[in-house]
Amino acid sequence: MTETISLISHPFDRAIALQPQDDGSWLAQTSTDYANMVGPFGGITAATVLQALLIQPERLGDPVALTVNFAGPIRDGGFSVLVRPMRSSRTTQHWSVEVHQDGQCVINAIAVFALRRTTWSATEVVMPDVAPADALPRAGRTMAVKWPDCYDMRFVRGGLMGVSGEGNNPDSLTQLWISDSPPRTLDFAALTAICDAFFPRLFSRRAQPVPIGTISLNIHFHADAASLTNNGSAPLLAMAQGQVFHQGFADQVAQVWSAQGQLLATTQQTVWFKE
Amino acid sequence: MTETISLISHPFDRAIALQPQDDGSWLAQTSTDYANMVGPFGGITAATVLQALLIQPERLGDPVALTVNFAGPIRDGGFSVLVRPMRSSRTTQHWSVEVHQDGQCVINAIAVFALRRTTWSATEVVMPDVAPADALPRAGRTMAVKWPDCYDMRFVRGGLMGVSGEGNNPDSLTQLWISDSPPRTLDFAALTAICDAFFPRLFSRRAQPVPIGTISLNIHFHADAASLTNNGSAPLLAMAQGQVFHQGFADQVAQVWSAQGQLLATTQQTVWFKE
Repeated sequence: MTETISLISHPFDRAIALQPQDDGSWLAQTSTDYANMVGPFGGITAATVLQALLIQPERLGDPVALTVNFAGPIRDGGFSVLVRPMRSSRTTQHWSVEVHQDGQCVINAIAVFALRRTTWSATEVVMPDVAPADALPRAGRTMAVKWPDCYDMRFVRGGLMGVSGEGNNPDSLTQLWISDSPPRTLDFAALTAICDAFFPRLFSRRAQPVPIGTISLNIHFHADAASLTNNGSAPLLAMAQGQVFHQGFADQVAQVWSAQGQLLATTQQTVWFKE
Repeated sequence: MTETISLISHPFDRAIALQPQDDGSWLAQTSTDYANMVGPFGGITAATVLQALLIQPERLGDPVALTVNFAGPIRDGGFSVLVRPMRSSRTTQHWSVEVHQDGQCVINAIAVFALRRTTWSATEVVMPDVAPADALPRAGRTMAVKWPDCYDMRFVRGGLMGVSGEGNNPDSLTQLWISDSPPRTLDFAALTAICDAFFPRLFSRRAQPVPIGTISLNIHFHADAASLTNNGSAPLLAMAQGQVFHQGFADQVAQVWSAQGQLLATTQQTVWFKE
């Protein structure tokens, strides 16, 4: 029996690894660990896009806003990440990222980075008061795809097929504790992937699988790098709900909280769906 | 007394007008009607970005997702809009837009357009039951800037300085009826501008003016062009709230409803703020 030995020990780090190319682009490889129904889990692709910015030597501060538009399917194998600085000031920095495969654009993304500093502060939304992660069972394998195995998910409310598991559920609200499995200290790339790690709202609402695909993912980050490091590998409380399902497109709004009650990220996405 | 006569009668259409240039870009001009404290109202800039896509001959369907990142201040005068098609399929189309002024990128934007079609449909969020627009007074001039005069705003809850107008308000939630003034039939460009036409959440929460600037605006559209046309010039119910204000950045999530109760757009943005 042979085994590939890698110096990068965590599957997440292997999945978002980028090799510099002579033309200034970065080469990435899809990861079998994070495989989805077709091609890779969108969250790991979004994390790879952000990682390509985080490793830039001229990168300023922390990510504040990231939009990843999924322009076409990614097949298993290599893909090329092109990073373009658009504008920098003393405190903010704007970037564009394109991902290409087989000569076609598969991801179209933009991001803002900024220096954070101490200011007046308030969190207006309230973290729900729920059972702690260690009082809940870890979800078993729920889908015939690989990527959910990379997360320890403990559902507080809802599951793959929503609150009832049958019929048309009254809402699509899901609350769960989530962390990387095996454990890994939180950073912006991991938080990005977690922002897309909810099962589809359509499944939660309709209690049935429906063909879907994310077309646009927008993440606003509300914490600095130190806050993420301080979280360590503790589970995050993540909650998502669909607001509208209409004419082939459905949205999802979500919040991701640290166990200590800090709102780390908010995100909205639109998915295409069939029927 | 001389007066410039324009064949385009509505100030909104004049503000988003684009002239084709020999190099394939489009030339726009800031509008004094939509002037903000410094440079133009961000919503009219975002609308101009979307307009540059709407007028492309190969444009497919309706906008589904738009992200506009504000990379630097726009001074009064001309600016150049560069449109780049990134990927098209039978049903979806991806675009990049850059706006340049004085040789620098001032806007970095991406968008998804798509063909909408009849499918299973549900709206999970509920339109608040509020007094109709014609039962409320039109807000008078509230800020020493021009752009709010381009809107008929009727506040249901909150106002420029929030619910109390003094002290630290308990929340930043604003509800208002809003429409273009003079009246104009709704379209995607106008809806885009309205998605950014809320007074800053910081003002609503802290009941005081605070230096702020939008850095990233994300809009998800949930209606087709016919739904917007059918709305005519009827006022829209718009509601916005900040979720978190932290380390120099604050967010805003918002919903825009037709008077008939259709959720037309949801949006989130992040602003930079001082102190």
